Amino acid sequence: MKATIERATLLKSLSHVQSVVERRNTIPILSNVLIEASADGRLKLMATDLDLQIVETVEAAVDTPGATTVSAHTLFDIARKLPEGSQVQLTAAEGKMLVVAGRARFNLATLPRDDFPVIAEGELPTKFELPSETLKQIIDKTRFAISTEETRYYLNGIFLHVSDDSQPVLKAAATDGHRLARVTVPRPDGAAGMPDVIVPRKCVGELRKLLDEVDGSVEVSLSSTKVRFGLGSAILTSKLIDGTFPDYSRVIPTANDKLLRIDPRSFEEGVDRVATIASEKTRAVKMALERDKITLSVTSPENGTAAEEVPGEYTAPNFEIGFNARYLLDILGQIEGDTVEVHLADAAAPTLIRENDTAPALYVLMPMRV
Amino acid sequence: MKATIERATLLKSLSHVQSVVERRNTIPILSNVLIEASADGRLKLMATDLDLQIVETVEAAVDTPGATTVSAHTLFDIARKLPEGSQVQLTAAEGKMLVVAGRARFNLATLPRDDFPVIAEGELPTKFELPSETLKQIIDKTRFAISTEETRYYLNGIFLHVSDDSQPVLKAAATDGHRLARVTVPRPDGAAGMPDVIVPRKCVGELRKLLDEVDGSVEVSLSSTKVRFGLGSAILTSKLIDGTFPDYSRVIPTANDKLLRIDPRSFEEGVDRVATIASEKTRAVKMALERDKITLSVTSPENGTAAEEVPGEYTAPNFEIGFNARYLLDILGQIEGDTVEVHLADAAAPTLIRENDTAPALYVLMPMRV
Repeated sequence: MKATIERATLLKSLSHVQSVVERRNTIPILSNVLIEASADGRLKLMATDLDLQIVETVEAAVDTPGATTVSAHTLFDIARKLPEGSQVQLTAAEGKMLVVAGRARFNLATLPRDDFPVIAEGELPTKFELPSETLKQIIDKTRFAISTEETRYYLNGIFLHVSDDSQPVLKAAATDGHRLARVTVPRPDGAAGMPDVIVPRKCVGELRKLLDEVDGSVEVSLSSTKVRFGLGSAILTSKLIDGTFPDYSRVIPTANDKLLRIDPRSFEEGVDRVATIASEKTRAVKMALERDKITLSVTSPENGTAAEEVPGEYTAPNFEIGFNARYLLDILGQIEGDTVEVHLADAAAPTLIRENDTAPALYVLMPMRV
Repeated sequence: MKATIERATLLKSLSHVQSVVERRNTIPILSNVLIEASADGRLKLMATDLDLQIVETVEAAVDTPGATTVSAHTLFDIARKLPEGSQVQLTAAEGKMLVVAGRARFNLATLPRDDFPVIAEGELPTKFELPSETLKQIIDKTRFAISTEETRYYLNGIFLHVSDDSQPVLKAAATDGHRLARVTVPRPDGAAGMPDVIVPRKCVGELRKLLDEVDGSVEVSLSSTKVRFGLGSAILTSKLIDGTFPDYSRVIPTANDKLLRIDPRSFEEGVDRVATIASEKTRAVKMALERDKITLSVTSPENGTAAEEVPGEYTAPNFEIGFNARYLLDILGQIEGDTVEVHLADAAAPTLIRENDTAPALYVLMPMRV
């Protein structure tokens, strides 16, 4: 293999692929990036952790087609430090890869390309396109609710499924048992009949990073075990979580009769301020609801007390309820408009939070005793 | 105590004082900031770790003079989150301090002001002024060489002493046994006859942060056991390290006969690049010196090899020498001009690095076997 590539192009693709590579690997070749130069002037860079795989294809001047694998993080660090604007020559021979740019020469250890594991995609019968902005929104408004508990592995991702409500929709949901986030978007062409899938957290994270550099549409292809996201020069393929996502629709309250309408920014800032003195463990904040006003308060045995009044539209009977401040802030951080609706029932019942009844996103938050 | 202060003023002073407070304290009051409001419209904020003390005095509208102590980090976090431009009312009564700003109210636990430990400065007979730019330079060009080995506590700071060379000078030195950094500046008025002192690393760090916000001069006062830095509204007082700094002048080579003149930026970038593949432990980089050229190289059992040629002025006999890349980069990072002089003797002897023979800073670096 012999190819020459611009340092900026190499650096950008490596920044994508090395991010998939875990820092510690028991299987040495998983630390490596597969580099494949083909006769038609393309360089393919590929990395995997056996569950998630990224392939990025870029232009290069290829003298001799071929392939090899080298440490992804080392090559990325080298590319970062090479002079701006330099041309990088990659030559694989005799079990080494020579990297030459300017006056610098690196002779890197390699592992055989044939040992590099590739995720077999198999058939991906469902294919549809999503505007990158829609996909960003789906991820941003749900990912914070993804569970990190490994025992409940079926909650460690975003659940995607289609459904026929008043119109055909695609729904994305995530929950950790304390809170639920759901986004509903119109069902894209081609998604009808797709299987229910759970996209793992790591795939969600890498996808979200790539979306910052993509305009236009993302091609989504999936089966019941794999999903592939095509984003221009990058293709992300992931195994899906092999489990059953709970029937979350049952926890979305439909009969909460107490409605609070409030400015999400004042609400958020008030919660953030009083939570300053909350103990790290519980982060409990109390909301006392009275006519057109709520009082947020925290009592901490070590630090003292904090309280803040926030005006809001509220006419139902007075009552008090407690929430985890962190969870409340996560949700409020996703509300963009100038009003948020908080639908409450009582101090022990799940609370529904949404911008309004036509907003694509909806959140359910379990209260806590305060 | 009752006083009102602008949030921005409170936040800025708290950001200075809370930085001295350790995150974990076995003595509870060391987590607190002492707040003292005096009748002449000033608020004094004070924090200490028993070795280092900071006092910051700011303007406030004082209704009732008095003093109390509250958690420094909590009050800082609160101040950060209070609305911009708000007025903060501080009221101490009945073992609590009430903080009111906008619609937010905090009632914080306090500890009695009389329990707050104050460092007795005693007599500080030596007094002089240093331009803040000079003090910044002294710190920046030496602090990286301060030892972190607690067993050699007498190396855990910057050594300051006066001396009569061709003219009266003040010298600052730091070493960890592998490298030495020394800065020489003209002796300020009032520094004649000052005792040799070792300023601890934490004091150096806090002082450096404050210097970013100060123009003009810093008032330095010291005895053989304490030092005080007056920086406008802030006063930093520190105990000095009670130990004897080694006679470092003996390790500064005077007869190194091989001179390399090189562009510090090319040198730095070359070292940084080849060090990419060096193992974390040794960070060893080899320099092969030949006529008007040096070759930097690294050999790593895991990663392979790296080499880079850098042009330089060199006419002495060819030879090879190894350095810790990290240490070399620390030094080169402090060289501002477009040439650096590297004075070498042999592969085992201390190497002298400086911009030129009139530069205030001078560095000595021990080689390592490669």
